[in-house]
Amino acid sequence: MEKTEHIHEVRRQVDAWRTAGLKVGFVPTMGFLHEGHLALVERAKMTCDKIVVSIFVNPTQFSPGEDLDSYPRDESGDLKKLREAGTHLVFLPMVETLYPKGEETIVELGNLPNHLCGLRRPGHFRGVATVCTKLFNIVRPHEAVFGTKDFQQVQVLKKMVRDLCMELEIITVETRREVDGLAMSSRNAYLTKEERRNAPILYRCLTRVREQARNGEKNASLLIQQTKEAIEDAGGIIDYIEIVNSEDLESVPVINENSHMLVAAFFGRARLIDNAPLIDSQQPV
Amino acid sequence: MEKTEHIHEVRRQVDAWRTAGLKVGFVPTMGFLHEGHLALVERAKMTCDKIVVSIFVNPTQFSPGEDLDSYPRDESGDLKKLREAGTHLVFLPMVETLYPKGEETIVELGNLPNHLCGLRRPGHFRGVATVCTKLFNIVRPHEAVFGTKDFQQVQVLKKMVRDLCMELEIITVETRREVDGLAMSSRNAYLTKEERRNAPILYRCLTRVREQARNGEKNASLLIQQTKEAIEDAGGIIDYIEIVNSEDLESVPVINENSHMLVAAFFGRARLIDNAPLIDSQQPV
Repeated sequence: MEKTEHIHEVRRQVDAWRTAGLKVGFVPTMGFLHEGHLALVERAKMTCDKIVVSIFVNPTQFSPGEDLDSYPRDESGDLKKLREAGTHLVFLPMVETLYPKGEETIVELGNLPNHLCGLRRPGHFRGVATVCTKLFNIVRPHEAVFGTKDFQQVQVLKKMVRDLCMELEIITVETRREVDGLAMSSRNAYLTKEERRNAPILYRCLTRVREQARNGEKNASLLIQQTKEAIEDAGGIIDYIEIVNSEDLESVPVINENSHMLVAAFFGRARLIDNAPLIDSQQPV
Repeated sequence: MEKTEHIHEVRRQVDAWRTAGLKVGFVPTMGFLHEGHLALVERAKMTCDKIVVSIFVNPTQFSPGEDLDSYPRDESGDLKKLREAGTHLVFLPMVETLYPKGEETIVELGNLPNHLCGLRRPGHFRGVATVCTKLFNIVRPHEAVFGTKDFQQVQVLKKMVRDLCMELEIITVETRREVDGLAMSSRNAYLTKEERRNAPILYRCLTRVREQARNGEKNASLLIQQTKEAIEDAGGIIDYIEIVNSEDLESVPVINENSHMLVAAFFGRARLIDNAPLIDSQQPV
């Protein structure tokens, strides 16, 4: 496994692979890797010959007052995991490399960010889209792999790739979960013991709502209200609970086969998110 | 010479060239080609093995009330000229191909558009940046060649390429001129006989100011005032006359080696632009 912080070294390596006819898979991360990230690497290996992983805590996707400064980091642990997972190249750029002095060009996404996490985290998806554009332009992968835990992010990036005619495919991998159902997340490191015990309520609610929806309950606000009460009973502070159309992320009052439920709640200082398709079993959870 | 309106055919062809180790040059145009465009093709041929030209009248770079609907077109004439110039592939996308239903992602450029043409044509450079991003992602050239007549456009695109880590080089070619100095432009077709006789005043003013600056006159407002009077005497309606720093396009009161003069004026319905470096002889005119 090679690692570099330099754009030109990534380009040189990927150019050589592409010229040799090899397929390049890319997993962008913010580090502090868990099994969910490694599942993305595993997925990339299924269809690609060479795997590039980036580790970059992207400042522009954090809103003021969020956890940019305290975001957990473990570079040596990450490199060990990535080596064991069969990664070929790790790109660890400096902030000044992706955001040099005077840079100011951004990618704006239209209406998709005006929902869910985008409303609560102003500029978040602009930051995600801008840094992914830079990373995609540097790594030039055939496939980029993202986890479904960040459902809105995946929808935003798929749209960006389509709209800007980028030549790569966005691949999604289902959310990896702890045994009690809690979605794996670097931010789970913020949870106290008690919060950790309570946090799986998010997944239990999603599972219950899905079961109710599949059994014929189509009333979105009823299901949202039940979920709200259950999360609050478990000590969570609701950021949002919504049932939306999975394509445009608009709220739907009556559940149909495109409906998707998304929740965001604080347990202590950890803001946790999770989501599930309610009817369609083709979408990963 | 091949021509296509399909993204996948451009990609197939360019992929084959790149895999064969050939260097790809790209000249994006809005058609109605003149010698200025063909000079861009000539320049691309100097350093590239294969030349792609796009012809696309990009709706998003026209402001409301501008000449989108009447913009001159001559596809068969253009194709003949491009074939004779040694172009290898012409890309003529439909509007729906680059702007399919529901697309809404844009590239925003920070402060550079807040000057000169950008102030008079709201959204113009956003449209230019967005369509060039799409075209660059489709054609994936090693070099893209633009004329210096559109000086602000060149600065904007160079910045975009740098900021978004795009892997291509923006090459500039000096403005091609008629024998009387008028900068070649598709919009010269709008000029009446009398307007055509008067329009070279733009170039004559730039030449005179350059001479004065090189002879030691450093007072920008004095030189701008002289230019204003001369253009108005020739029947032009001034849109702007500015002397700016060539990097950030900020107005400068005292001329130095980075100063660049830009003019925009209407002659009848034709909005004509021209520009020149005042001291630095390394910059193309």
